[in-house]
Amino acid sequence: MQSIQIVRAGQDAAAGASLDTPRYIRMHANDNVAIVVNDGGLKAGAVFADGLTLLGAVPQGHKVALSDVRQGEPVTRYNVTIGYAACDIAAGSWVSEANLRMPDALELSGLPIATRAAPVMEPLEGYTFEGYRNADGSVGTRNILAITTTVQCVSGVVDHAVRRIKETLLPLYPNVDDVVGLEHSYGCGVAIEAPGADIPIRTLRNISQNPNFGGQAMVVSLGCEKLQPARLFPKGSIPILNGREPATVCLQDAGHVGFMSMIDSIVATADEQLKVLNARRRETCSAADLVVGVQCGGSDAFSGVTANPAVGYATDLLVRAGATVMFSEVTEVRDGIDQLTSRAADPEVAAAMIREMEWYDAYLKRGGVDRSANTTPGNKAGGLSNIVEKAMGSIVKSGSSAISGVLSPGEKLGARRGLIYAATPASDFICGTLQVAAGMNIHVFTTGRGTPYGLAPVPVIKVATRNDLARRWHDLMDVNAGRIASGEATIEDVGWELFRLMLDVASGRQTWAEHWKLHNALTLFNPAPVT
Amino acid sequence: MQSIQIVRAGQDAAAGASLDTPRYIRMHANDNVAIVVNDGGLKAGAVFADGLTLLGAVPQGHKVALSDVRQGEPVTRYNVTIGYAACDIAAGSWVSEANLRMPDALELSGLPIATRAAPVMEPLEGYTFEGYRNADGSVGTRNILAITTTVQCVSGVVDHAVRRIKETLLPLYPNVDDVVGLEHSYGCGVAIEAPGADIPIRTLRNISQNPNFGGQAMVVSLGCEKLQPARLFPKGSIPILNGREPATVCLQDAGHVGFMSMIDSIVATADEQLKVLNARRRETCSAADLVVGVQCGGSDAFSGVTANPAVGYATDLLVRAGATVMFSEVTEVRDGIDQLTSRAADPEVAAAMIREMEWYDAYLKRGGVDRSANTTPGNKAGGLSNIVEKAMGSIVKSGSSAISGVLSPGEKLGARRGLIYAATPASDFICGTLQVAAGMNIHVFTTGRGTPYGLAPVPVIKVATRNDLARRWHDLMDVNAGRIASGEATIEDVGWELFRLMLDVASGRQTWAEHWKLHNALTLFNPAPVT
Repeated sequence: MQSIQIVRAGQDAAAGASLDTPRYIRMHANDNVAIVVNDGGLKAGAVFADGLTLLGAVPQGHKVALSDVRQGEPVTRYNVTIGYAACDIAAGSWVSEANLRMPDALELSGLPIATRAAPVMEPLEGYTFEGYRNADGSVGTRNILAITTTVQCVSGVVDHAVRRIKETLLPLYPNVDDVVGLEHSYGCGVAIEAPGADIPIRTLRNISQNPNFGGQAMVVSLGCEKLQPARLFPKGSIPILNGREPATVCLQDAGHVGFMSMIDSIVATADEQLKVLNARRRETCSAADLVVGVQCGGSDAFSGVTANPAVGYATDLLVRAGATVMFSEVTEVRDGIDQLTSRAADPEVAAAMIREMEWYDAYLKRGGVDRSANTTPGNKAGGLSNIVEKAMGSIVKSGSSAISGVLSPGEKLGARRGLIYAATPASDFICGTLQVAAGMNIHVFTTGRGTPYGLAPVPVIKVATRNDLARRWHDLMDVNAGRIASGEATIEDVGWELFRLMLDVASGRQTWAEHWKLHNALTLFNPAPVT
Repeated sequence: MQSIQIVRAGQDAAAGASLDTPRYIRMHANDNVAIVVNDGGLKAGAVFADGLTLLGAVPQGHKVALSDVRQGEPVTRYNVTIGYAACDIAAGSWVSEANLRMPDALELSGLPIATRAAPVMEPLEGYTFEGYRNADGSVGTRNILAITTTVQCVSGVVDHAVRRIKETLLPLYPNVDDVVGLEHSYGCGVAIEAPGADIPIRTLRNISQNPNFGGQAMVVSLGCEKLQPARLFPKGSIPILNGREPATVCLQDAGHVGFMSMIDSIVATADEQLKVLNARRRETCSAADLVVGVQCGGSDAFSGVTANPAVGYATDLLVRAGATVMFSEVTEVRDGIDQLTSRAADPEVAAAMIREMEWYDAYLKRGGVDRSANTTPGNKAGGLSNIVEKAMGSIVKSGSSAISGVLSPGEKLGARRGLIYAATPASDFICGTLQVAAGMNIHVFTTGRGTPYGLAPVPVIKVATRNDLARRWHDLMDVNAGRIASGEATIEDVGWELFRLMLDVASGRQTWAEHWKLHNALTLFNPAPVT
C-alpha cells in the first residue's frame, strides 16, 4: 500500500479551512474517480477547488468521475480497476454500482510471487506494555478464566454456573478480570467426519489456549456428544498446559445426582483454576509480545481512506517493533491477491495464500455464489460499489511489510511472527473468533457505518472512519480516524495514536466495549453440514 | 407404529418381580434381536427365562441375537432390517456395529404412497388448558416479550438492554413471564442471495410470531446489515400483528447519540410492548389449541422402547383431541421413509415428504457425507448400532395417525392441523429452533443419555428413557418413561401422564428447565455459505 497517495482537492489541510468547501479525496494520481468528503454529501453544481463541477448530487463517501470515462473503459481507484464503465460517464458524474460493471475475479495462476521487495524498515525499540506472561511464552493482556464447552447441550448449565462463580467466587480473586463460558453451537448434530469439520474443532481447541486464559483450561462436557473431550484435546495438544490435562467436568458422569451436583462440580473446578489465575501478576513485556488481529466491519468508502490506512501504519509500527499482526477476510482480499502474493516473504507464503483463495472459491461455488456475495446494503449506501472496491480499502490494514506467514481458518499462530495472513471469512464474528483461536491478545476493528462489536476473551479497540460517527458514538468508538478526512490529523498521527493505545489497552486500560461489557457470541466457522 | 408389540422374556410384569432377573425386550415377534434391560448390563452365562444364554457380556440397551444369524442374513428389530450380519452370529451373542453391515438408504422412488389406512380413532373431547389467546387464533402457553434482532452485531447492546428491562421494567408488569432477546449469528457476513438462504430468514421471521410472544413483535436492527428489517418483515408478513408494523429500533439512526441513547430507545419501545402484554389473561382453551413439537436427543436403545412409544401414544391422544403435533429430524426418519409415505393422508403429503428427503440427501452429499453422519458416540454406547436402528426408535414418536401435512425448514404451521412432519436437521437446537418458528407452544424432548436441554421461548418437557437417568437427574427430567422397561408402567400409562402434564404445563406449570432457567441459544439452520 506504500504506493497510495492521498490527494485532497478543494481543501486546505491547514487548520481553519472551512469544512463546507466541496472536497474530494483521490487515492492515487492514476485514479479517474475520487470520493466526496463533505458530511451530508454535495449537491449538483458544487464546484471543487480544481474547477470540477458536480453534474448531480453525490452522497458522502460516494465516487465522482474526475474525467470523462467512455463505456467499457476502466474505472480506477487505489490505482486498481474497480470496474468498467457500463455507459459513458461524464466528468462530475456520480459513479456507483448502477454504472459500473464488476471485473472478473483474478486468475489464481500466473500471479506475481514474492516480487516486491519489502521496504527496509527501522526496528522500533523500547516500547513495552504490562502483560501476563504464560508458560508457553505467549503473553496475556487480560487474566480471564475460560470454561470450554464441548457441545451446545451444556450451555444452559454453564451459564448458570458462570453466574454463580461471578457472584460468589470472583470477588475473592481480585486479580482475575472475568469468567467466560466459551459457548458455541458445535459439538453434536454435525457431520464431524465431513471435509472441513477439522476447522471448527481446531478452532475450539485453539480458543481454549488463547493467551488471555493463562493456560488454566477447564472443560464442561455432556458425555454422549460427538465432540468428545479426548477428541477436542488429544493428548499433548495444548502446549500452554505444559503436558497437563485440562480439568474436565462431564455432566453425564454417574456421580452427578441432581442439577446442583453439576453446578457444584463446575464451581469447584473453577475455584481451583481461579486460585492459580489469581496469583498471576502483570510484568513488563516488549511490544513484540503483542499479537494484534485487525478487522473491519460495517465498512464505507472512508474505511480505505482514513481508518484502514491508519491501521496499516500502526501495523508497520508493530512489525517494526517485532510484534505480530494478523489480517484476514478472504473475500476482502481476493480481488487484491496479486498485491499479496507479490508481498509474500517467500514463495511458500504466496503458495499458501493462493491455496486459501482456491479453497474459499470452491467453498462459495459449492454454495452457488462467489466473492460478490460479500457487500452489504450498508457498504453500498456508504459508497462502496462492489467487492473489488471494498477489498482495496480492506487490504490497506496490512500496511506495507512483507507477509511472513499464512494461517488456515482456526489454526494457531505457533511460532509465526510478523505480518500474517490469517485466512477467515469476512463475517465479523467468525473472523474475530478465528483470530481469538489464532492467539490474538489485542483486536482492532474499524467501522464506517458503526457497530457496537465486542468480544469477551480479548479487548477490542474500535476505530471510526468518519467524524460524524465518532461524534455520535463517542462512548463506543475508541479512536476517531475521521480526522484524517477532515484534515485535522494525518494517517501517521492516527497510526501512532492507535499504536500507543494498543500498548495502553494491553496493559489493562479498558476499551469502550469492555466498559459497557458488550460481548458478542463466539461464532464458529463450520463449512461442513449439520445432521 | 401400531404393529409394534413389546415382548418381555424372563420378566414378570407384575409388581414384585426382581429387577435382577435377566431380561430383554423384543420389539416385534419377527425380530431376531432384542435389547438387554438390566441396569449395568449382563455377564456371559446369564440365562433368560426362555432359556437363551448369553455367550458374552452385553451392556444395558445393547442387542442380543435371539437365534443364529448367518453372515449376510438380515438382522431385524422393529420388524425392520437394521443391518446384515457381517459374520455368522450365534444365538446369545452381542450384536453391535462391529458385526452389522448397514443397509443402503431406501430409494425415494417407488415408495408406498398413502397406502396405509389411518386407524379410526375416537375423538377425545373435554380436555382444556388455560392459555393466552392471540389475535390470529393461535394460543400462547407463556406470555413473553421477545426482542427480535436482524443481525448478530446488535446482540451485545440487546443483552445490556434486556438486563435493564428485567431489572427495572419487568417487576412492574407481573403478568409478563419473561423478556427474551432473540439472538443469532445470522444477518450479515452471509451469502444472503444463495440457494437456501430463505431458510434462516423465514425462520427468524416466523420465530418472532411464535404464539408465546403475543404478537408484540419488536425489532432491533443495526442499520447496515444484509438482513434489513424490511427484508426480514416485508409488508403484511406478520399475520399475528394484524397489519401493524413491528416496532423497530435502529442503532445507526442519526438520533442515537451515545450508547445510553440506544439502550433508552430499546427500553422505551419494550415498555410499550410490555404494557400490552401485561393486559393479557389466561383463558380456557381446548386441548386442540396445543401445538406440540416432539424431539429426541442423546438417544439410546431405550428411546425407541420406552420414551418415544409413550410420546407416540400421547401424540395419538393429542391428534384425537384436535391438537397439532410436529415430528421432525430428517436423518432420523430417512430410513423409515416408506413407513411415513404410506401413512400420508394423501399423495401430496407423501410427495412433500419425499421432496424434503431428496433436498437433505443432496445437502449432505454436497458436504461429502450421508445420513450415517448422524449417530454419536453416546448413541452407540447406548446400544444404537447405526442410523437405521436409531431412526426406527425415533419415528415411534409420531404415533399412528395419518400424516396430514409437511413443513419445510423454517416454515410456519399456518392453517395445518393434526400430525405434521416438520422437516429439520436432527441437531437438537436447530430442530427446536425450527419448531419454535413453526409455532409450537409446548416442546417434548426425550433423552436416554441425558441432556439439560431448555429453550427460552417455549416450555420443554423432558422425558427420560431409563429409570437410572430419571433417578439421578431427578430435578431435570419431568417424566420417567423408564418405568415401562422395568414393568412399573405401561406405554399407555406414561402416554396419558405426558398428555396431562402437557395440559398442566400449557396452563403455566413450570418444567424443570424453566425452574432452573436453562436456556440454550436458538440456532439457525443456514445451508448457504458465509462470506
